[in-house]
Amino acid sequence: MPKFKVPEVTIERLSIYLRAIKRLNEENILSSQELANLLETSDGQVRKDLAYFGEFGVPGQGYKVGKLKKEIRHILGLNTTWGMALVGVGNLGRALLIYPGFKRNEFEIRAAFDKDPSKIGKVWQGVEVQDVENIPQILPLKEIKIGIITTPASAAQEVADKLVKGGVKGILNFAPTRISIPKEVKLKNVDLSMQLENLSYFLNKRSQIRRQK
Amino acid sequence: MPKFKVPEVTIERLSIYLRAIKRLNEENILSSQELANLLETSDGQVRKDLAYFGEFGVPGQGYKVGKLKKEIRHILGLNTTWGMALVGVGNLGRALLIYPGFKRNEFEIRAAFDKDPSKIGKVWQGVEVQDVENIPQILPLKEIKIGIITTPASAAQEVADKLVKGGVKGILNFAPTRISIPKEVKLKNVDLSMQLENLSYFLNKRSQIRRQK
Repeated sequence: MPKFKVPEVTIERLSIYLRAIKRLNEENILSSQELANLLETSDGQVRKDLAYFGEFGVPGQGYKVGKLKKEIRHILGLNTTWGMALVGVGNLGRALLIYPGFKRNEFEIRAAFDKDPSKIGKVWQGVEVQDVENIPQILPLKEIKIGIITTPASAAQEVADKLVKGGVKGILNFAPTRISIPKEVKLKNVDLSMQLENLSYFLNKRSQIRRQK
Repeated sequence: MPKFKVPEVTIERLSIYLRAIKRLNEENILSSQELANLLETSDGQVRKDLAYFGEFGVPGQGYKVGKLKKEIRHILGLNTTWGMALVGVGNLGRALLIYPGFKRNEFEIRAAFDKDPSKIGKVWQGVEVQDVENIPQILPLKEIKIGIITTPASAAQEVADKLVKGGVKGILNFAPTRISIPKEVKLKNVDLSMQLENLSYFLNKRSQIRRQK
């Protein structure tokens, strides 16, 4: 593990690297330039990103796909199974319960919670919905370290407090609001509309280029 | 607009900058260091990101919040209203129909489509669900330039083809699969599990630090 702080964008790119090489033959060797092409970035960027974690390329040749996959999985903490709890079984919550990326060996939703009595007791994707009041008691029993918040904004802080009480180490917050948690718990806010702004940048740029022609 | 290629991460950071300064007084002047602190990045990064779009700081002082907001909104193409169509009115689709970030002046879901006869004709959030077969005809009538795919993976390519036929310039794909579209249409794939890998990196790192102690 690196001794100095690794930028979050580097961590995000590692996830992208992993996806890009997922289907490649493990025996292949890729130069940083080939890796950069796969990712539409520069070879300098690739070398810089990977250098944070020590040398695992083959000098003068590049990176062996199998080794690279293994190292990135190790860095990202994907050699284990993270127990997760999802709170808020509305549309987004139900969508995530069946989302393939949230149902892998590495991530497992072990409990779901809601405060709506008509939802409590129902089973979604093999997970029974329980009362939010029980979060602090149930989380330790199921070794849950990650909480996913998919409640309306108004309920998010209260839910975050309960998750922290239940011992989570990280929270993925989809509710469109800011929440406060102790600094030893890692918070990731997911804003689905950022990708939309990214798209509008490109569409806007293209329309301006057309107008200039 | 810049003459050379701006990295996608820079565009993503612009969205983050905009969120960070949203509630600040328009008259405030922020140094690149203050802006960097807000964003947990370096001042060099901030200056580099903004330099892609020409000089709009006040030399020796920093960036005026009002001007910065205006410029970033302009760069991101947020001075207009983008008409959007959502295809796939399942859990995720319904979640997005009520998602605050998708219901702003800049973005407007003007049509929703599904192929399930039991969903066609229903109204969600004021938008009537129509048959996917009608996508190519309806999109031009409603000046829709962005398509959002929230179908299962198996339907995504067929839907993308229809959206392209209907004249969209950009597609936001939430279906967990790769789709092919003509290169003049901009594609953004949204992978909700990347944030989860990001979180597991931090949790893993901390547990290793604890073990070392």
